[in-house]
Amino acid sequence: MNRRVLLKQRPKGIPVVTDFEITETAIPSPATDEVLVKNRFLSLDPYMRGQMDGGKSYIQAIDLGDVMNGHTVGEVILSNNSAFAPGDLVWGPGHWQEYTLMKSPSLRKITGLPSLSAWLGPMGLPGWTAYIGLSDFGTPTQGETIVISSAIGAVGALVGQLAKSQGLHVVGIAGGAKKCRYAIEHLGYDECIDYKAENFPARLANACPNGIDIDFENVGGPILDAVWPLLNSHSRVIVCGLMAQYNLISKYPGPDMTQLLRSRINMRGFIISDHFARIPEAIARMNELVADGKIKFKEDITFGIENAPEAFIGMLQGANFGKTLVELK
Amino acid sequence: MNRRVLLKQRPKGIPVVTDFEITETAIPSPATDEVLVKNRFLSLDPYMRGQMDGGKSYIQAIDLGDVMNGHTVGEVILSNNSAFAPGDLVWGPGHWQEYTLMKSPSLRKITGLPSLSAWLGPMGLPGWTAYIGLSDFGTPTQGETIVISSAIGAVGALVGQLAKSQGLHVVGIAGGAKKCRYAIEHLGYDECIDYKAENFPARLANACPNGIDIDFENVGGPILDAVWPLLNSHSRVIVCGLMAQYNLISKYPGPDMTQLLRSRINMRGFIISDHFARIPEAIARMNELVADGKIKFKEDITFGIENAPEAFIGMLQGANFGKTLVELK
Repeated sequence: MNRRVLLKQRPKGIPVVTDFEITETAIPSPATDEVLVKNRFLSLDPYMRGQMDGGKSYIQAIDLGDVMNGHTVGEVILSNNSAFAPGDLVWGPGHWQEYTLMKSPSLRKITGLPSLSAWLGPMGLPGWTAYIGLSDFGTPTQGETIVISSAIGAVGALVGQLAKSQGLHVVGIAGGAKKCRYAIEHLGYDECIDYKAENFPARLANACPNGIDIDFENVGGPILDAVWPLLNSHSRVIVCGLMAQYNLISKYPGPDMTQLLRSRINMRGFIISDHFARIPEAIARMNELVADGKIKFKEDITFGIENAPEAFIGMLQGANFGKTLVELK
Repeated sequence: MNRRVLLKQRPKGIPVVTDFEITETAIPSPATDEVLVKNRFLSLDPYMRGQMDGGKSYIQAIDLGDVMNGHTVGEVILSNNSAFAPGDLVWGPGHWQEYTLMKSPSLRKITGLPSLSAWLGPMGLPGWTAYIGLSDFGTPTQGETIVISSAIGAVGALVGQLAKSQGLHVVGIAGGAKKCRYAIEHLGYDECIDYKAENFPARLANACPNGIDIDFENVGGPILDAVWPLLNSHSRVIVCGLMAQYNLISKYPGPDMTQLLRSRINMRGFIISDHFARIPEAIARMNELVADGKIKFKEDITFGIENAPEAFIGMLQGANFGKTLVELK
């Protein structure tokens, strides 16, 4: 049988487990050109919260009763496609379930190195997002200051290490002393500021004596408010995520436009699916950096698809420590 | 004697005439490399409001007791610089006064065509701002929709005509039926929406059936609020001015970041002084378009430097009709 997680009702604010439903159906058979994949790891990511709401979004909203969307890595079990054979390791939109029918071009063969789950981390969407976002839109220059919110999150941890390898002054923002210590001691951040502790804006300002040239924004809300007055002339703000705002019922006021004009800030919404042409370069470069030991990654693994909702809800509240993954039985 | 307008006190909100002081001093004599210019036209522009406040700004704030800053066109009277001779027509930072000592490189010789005052309009800073802002950061494509606030203002009127000549659907925003009619009948806007009339956001939406691809923002505040939800995926917002916010005592809430991310909006503060390398192209192109009759311009001329404060205050409240200039006696 194929266990799956469906969207049962649209969450109000932070999701609860009863917004999801665990069901079982028969394992499907591949039609022409299709392959049947047994999923081994499922990636849980903050953007999925947006898909749970109805209405206009950059990714198709999930209909009530449909399987929750997401990327997986897994193994081909049956193939009706000459490009894939049983035993091949693959990456694709496997969603929150144990078995998935997939086909080209959304399915990609992978090598399994440095590890299978790494293709949901530094070698996968988080890695592509970090590499392309920083290179193409951060346009970093040695000696500049970058601030990265959700500093040890799936994307942030990679941006921080990439920026450090390029000679930037790298300042992280994370929730809690433990995460901040990890950012500095294991990921090489120059500073990491706990946004939950007192006087967060003043401590952030102290950590950025030359102002901020690049903000890689994963959180938004009060975090962006603290970053905003510190932005230098000609600074770049890459809005990659708005974790602090996904669960809000009402809109959070945006940043002051007078500062945007005065400092000629360039700010953009950044979503990796617009930039797939740049992925081969990102994979090649991340592979080198991981192989050279210049990029480390930490995973927070939950076991069993039936526990995905709880892991997802925890991640939205910062309970994870590293990239949130579900390993399937 | 040289009549001048000084900054007497920093305005609170909208400036009043007693924030300025009219004085007379002796006409100065040029030192080595300097020329003495008799100013013929002074340009009044919204950005000057920011200079009247103390503190950090993108342009040096004006000190209390100093002459108000601004660009002028005029005639060289005396020259100690071999590059300029008496009788030459010049453009430069002449400020709010009748005579000014200036030198290279801020002083530029001009040809006087199509008219002297045009060098404060389509051939000057407003023209450079419109041309470079639209070309380099609007990246317009035929068939796209552009919205231009302050649609018949010094910059807006030129952006509208440039966009129309490039085959865009051009929608203006202006205050009052008379200005809107002028935008459509004389400047070739497809639509122009009166922000002072009822249901402004709904009427703007009706004028943009395919959404908005480019927002050339001169106003901010509630105008940007109405534009924001209509912005298409991959739209560009060029923040060139924030007329509605310059006189506010408190900060105006910025636009919703969720829409910025979802629609991958690219938004930037744009100030022409960052882009002086692009000016020769702008001058050449604007000259062609004016000569071909493809760019029209309207001037709102006040006579006498002593009336500059009143003209400036009126402009900040939308009382002008065309580019605000002061013609000097």
